[in-house]
Amino acid sequence: MIGRLNHVAIAVPDLEAASEQYRTALGASVGAPQDEPDHGVTVVFIELPNTKIELLYPLGEESPIQGFLDKNPSGGIHHVCYEVEDILAARDHLVQSGARVLGTGEPKTGAHGKPVLFLHPKDFNGCLVELEQV
Amino acid sequence: MIGRLNHVAIAVPDLEAASEQYRTALGASVGAPQDEPDHGVTVVFIELPNTKIELLYPLGEESPIQGFLDKNPSGGIHHVCYEVEDILAARDHLVQSGARVLGTGEPKTGAHGKPVLFLHPKDFNGCLVELEQV
Repeated sequence: MIGRLNHVAIAVPDLEAASEQYRTALGASVGAPQDEPDHGVTVVFIELPNTKIELLYPLGEESPIQGFLDKNPSGGIHHVCYEVEDILAARDHLVQSGARVLGTGEPKTGAHGKPVLFLHPKDFNGCLVELEQV
Repeated sequence: MIGRLNHVAIAVPDLEAASEQYRTALGASVGAPQDEPDHGVTVVFIELPNTKIELLYPLGEESPIQGFLDKNPSGGIHHVCYEVEDILAARDHLVQSGARVLGTGEPKTGAHGKPVLFLHPKDFNGCLVELEQV
């Protein structure tokens, strides 16, 4: 069912410093910051040859990233995103297998303009899993 | 400098249950467990179309994964592994940029039989980074 790893998201306490580090110390191709007000984050995408790293920084008062950074002030790996062909079929299959979908259970539009869902990290070895329909 | 994302490693409290979940609930291609006594882990590789997920479970008395699972009993994302062409050149460049290499600073042979190094997570936004020479 799951396809490609679309991205790994890393929450960072300083988006400019993290971008600069990936650009110069790690020598990667780093994009410009993009505000995603619907998701309460500013994101920077790092293009690797086979997938992306998504740097996440809080945007606005109710950012879902702020609590994570409060607990992990240095930052940390926040989630992985797997691609699926049919997000509703994937959701229904996962719910039948006992997994919990976060929020209303209905897909939202993600940072790439595609439908996304998040699965409960407690059901996936402490790993927050995003599914994105491609 | 960094190339492909070689894998994302997830530490899990129950390797069999996690393997079965990736196989049936997430419908992925899941390999057989491999003991890596030199690294104190048993690993299961999940092959995605563009990269791999590495499930990690402690092996032996001094597994480096045990402390992580003690702190995160449900498991969690443990590290990301980026490929590099020349691991010594990459290390020297990173050390010059102020990053710390874990252990002796010399590459070890990793789970794929290739030279690997780990970088200090505090220097990389709380994210443990493995470099693997390919």
